Amino acid sequence: MSFPVRTQGRRPSAADIVASVLSEIGGGRLPAGSRLPPVRVLEQQLGMSKNTAQSAYEELASRGAIEAREREGWFVARSATLPGATVNGHGVAPAPDLRPPPRLPAHRPGTARIALSTPYVDPDLLPRDKLAECTRSVLKQPGLKPFSDAQGLLSLREAIAERLRRRGMDGVDASHVVVTVGSTQALDLVARTLVRRRIAAETPVFPAGRLLFEGAGLEIAPLELDPFEGPRLDAWENTLATSRPGLLYLITSFQNPTGYSYSTHELTAILAMARAHGSAILEDDWGSEMLSGSEYRPMLRILGGANVLYVSSFTKKLWPSMRVGYIVAPPELVASLVAAKRMSTLGGAQIAEAIVAEFLERGYYDGHLEKLQRQLDTRYAACLEALRELMPADVRWTTPGGGPTLWLELPPRLDILRLAERLAARDVAIESTFAGVGQRNGFRVSYAYPPPPLLREGLAILAEEILLQAS
Amino acid sequence: MSFPVRTQGRRPSAADIVASVLSEIGGGRLPAGSRLPPVRVLEQQLGMSKNTAQSAYEELASRGAIEAREREGWFVARSATLPGATVNGHGVAPAPDLRPPPRLPAHRPGTARIALSTPYVDPDLLPRDKLAECTRSVLKQPGLKPFSDAQGLLSLREAIAERLRRRGMDGVDASHVVVTVGSTQALDLVARTLVRRRIAAETPVFPAGRLLFEGAGLEIAPLELDPFEGPRLDAWENTLATSRPGLLYLITSFQNPTGYSYSTHELTAILAMARAHGSAILEDDWGSEMLSGSEYRPMLRILGGANVLYVSSFTKKLWPSMRVGYIVAPPELVASLVAAKRMSTLGGAQIAEAIVAEFLERGYYDGHLEKLQRQLDTRYAACLEALRELMPADVRWTTPGGGPTLWLELPPRLDILRLAERLAARDVAIESTFAGVGQRNGFRVSYAYPPPPLLREGLAILAEEILLQAS
Repeated sequence: MSFPVRTQGRRPSAADIVASVLSEIGGGRLPAGSRLPPVRVLEQQLGMSKNTAQSAYEELASRGAIEAREREGWFVARSATLPGATVNGHGVAPAPDLRPPPRLPAHRPGTARIALSTPYVDPDLLPRDKLAECTRSVLKQPGLKPFSDAQGLLSLREAIAERLRRRGMDGVDASHVVVTVGSTQALDLVARTLVRRRIAAETPVFPAGRLLFEGAGLEIAPLELDPFEGPRLDAWENTLATSRPGLLYLITSFQNPTGYSYSTHELTAILAMARAHGSAILEDDWGSEMLSGSEYRPMLRILGGANVLYVSSFTKKLWPSMRVGYIVAPPELVASLVAAKRMSTLGGAQIAEAIVAEFLERGYYDGHLEKLQRQLDTRYAACLEALRELMPADVRWTTPGGGPTLWLELPPRLDILRLAERLAARDVAIESTFAGVGQRNGFRVSYAYPPPPLLREGLAILAEEILLQAS
Repeated sequence: MSFPVRTQGRRPSAADIVASVLSEIGGGRLPAGSRLPPVRVLEQQLGMSKNTAQSAYEELASRGAIEAREREGWFVARSATLPGATVNGHGVAPAPDLRPPPRLPAHRPGTARIALSTPYVDPDLLPRDKLAECTRSVLKQPGLKPFSDAQGLLSLREAIAERLRRRGMDGVDASHVVVTVGSTQALDLVARTLVRRRIAAETPVFPAGRLLFEGAGLEIAPLELDPFEGPRLDAWENTLATSRPGLLYLITSFQNPTGYSYSTHELTAILAMARAHGSAILEDDWGSEMLSGSEYRPMLRILGGANVLYVSSFTKKLWPSMRVGYIVAPPELVASLVAAKRMSTLGGAQIAEAIVAEFLERGYYDGHLEKLQRQLDTRYAACLEALRELMPADVRWTTPGGGPTLWLELPPRLDILRLAERLAARDVAIESTFAGVGQRNGFRVSYAYPPPPLLREGLAILAEEILLQAS
């Protein structure tokens, strides 16, 4: 507690202190038990001598207004004030009224022993030691700069641009890249700044994306995506013509949740459609780097040119808790995105950006991806083998050719919510959110997260429960 | 580039490949110069033998459709397609329409040799080596967890709560703390979730705060703050009665830009006023930890109880590019803030959170603050001495008793914008944004950032330019 001492400019006396403290106590502004500034603080802040301050406190103590507690200092005496039903005698501030939280989907693999549907990659496949090595290197001279670039660390933006050029994004340089706190922030920056407040997105939709866009007040038109057949382009054409969205939000590789990856043919058709209806494109490419040989599959950003907003991140492929993502934008829009970033987080943690930059600069990322892709290929093959062996005849699944996830479709009458409950009781988690969405009756199966023996065990339990429920 | 191969379920033949590639080239979907997947990729993804793939490519090459480039692979031949004014032959996507960026204030000390107005602390006063030591410790076993807690690392939230309890915030525990990407994100989370979309804030106002709130669509009512006299509470009463803001946003110690710190007396009066008009309170406390003895000055959060939203950060006091801040909220509102955080960045970089947690757990923070406060006290005294010695008689300044900044007020006729230009020409930067705001004619002077000799030099140049302009 502090108290005002009014002295009209002269140096305060002991009597000023006594009067001030008594007046504050009397007015209920220094409640019982309040700690008073030590004499050295009075000395410093009021420019009085230690003796004067000490004698003021002793005077107040002799009046019963304050008391000394050994080794703790001076406190307002319990007897000095009246008890009241208020915080510290001052009354409680009104509570702010905040919007209730929406029901958010899980953002971690969760606690079930076998997580069958998480889009995350098994941390054992991630380069923990090399990241630690890069961190140590980042700490060496010149070390971390005290101030950060709101657009993102230049060396990271350069390394990202260099990689993207190698993948075929001609002309991309560091000035087109905005580093973000995961790809989530990239989507948020677009949601904040988009002028036409209607977008179109795949259905089944990436749930966190939908909540983010809706939370920003955007209206979302659905673009039907069949995990087996791909986009229903005639329906898309209709949606674009009637809704005229300002932006198409598309997850072009291993779409979340269907696991579908668009062919070049489909991307080209979508591009023509977007052009015809004046809709811009936001491409979310979390997944293509997990597919072996995917450097030969062009992104929409390559086919459609520099106007396509391109989002990706290192979250899934490097280390989720690092939270480093990015967006590539046409030069004339970068300032809008950076301003939105400054108003939402100012910047991101430079140490995380510097570690990822170091990882890229050392050439570790390419080697890591190659190894990761090989391991995912092996796990994909093992997953297909287990599915063929274990699943009842009326269960279908997609064959994406590798990567992290596929889509499993159950017979139409099977109740996925009930299935999910029974599986949870056996410590197996599936994502039941999409049951019934777009007439689908299935869920995502991840072979990237559970190690093959655990995945096989989980699929065996799943098959048992499907048979039990069907009978 | 990839291309679809349609085979109705059977394994594709060399002829299938040839037909597909020719059809894609003919349709303009595989433009000249496109790189084709290497044979090993075709082998893997289409399940065909390497020989089959190789013979398909040779057949295409013999037809002049594709060509081999040494050590690079197979490409669509230049002669195979017609030139066009489109990106990769597909046509350019429409550009998204994003809101133009507002004019944002500087968020770094800038490039002038002497930065007289920055609120940042001289990095030489910050614990670079101890942070590096904590980072190395964080890397040791068990090291960084792959998945983060969207509310913030538990050990950091516990360390923050423990410190706040020691400063007098009874009952605060880790569950009330939400870690944010700097205090900027804390303000953003409140701005996103606030139900009554009108707030009140001090004028002169913290510029980045104003832009953040306005960007979120909030209306801002002004609360007049005089750097010398403090809040004009009668005017505040009026504003609250007529505007009925849902929230008062107040920077209670070293308000940005005035450098004013509220007395307990004033805080109590503001609290009563907020209660009378049903306005909640958001307290932004970036500054109190920089004042020696400030642990004896209660925050509004202590006087007003758990409903006061309390924001602070480690940015200025520890290391700006670390971007770790926090908000303390009543338990029933934490879920709303965490949901807003998940939809804006998911989480922050765990490594930055873990480093700050380690720094706090080792007890380094208290020792660092004590040292920092001593150094700021010395710099404050040197600043006052220089001002007294150098400034013309009609220049006034506040005496905040320590901390990072004070307010310097110039004679009313002096043109600050012109002064700022002349100073810039001499490599001295001042913040001229507030000239004329609330009938003020001054700016912030920082003694925390420029080392004393540089500060003195800057003030001497300032005094010269004031005299030149006055004459």
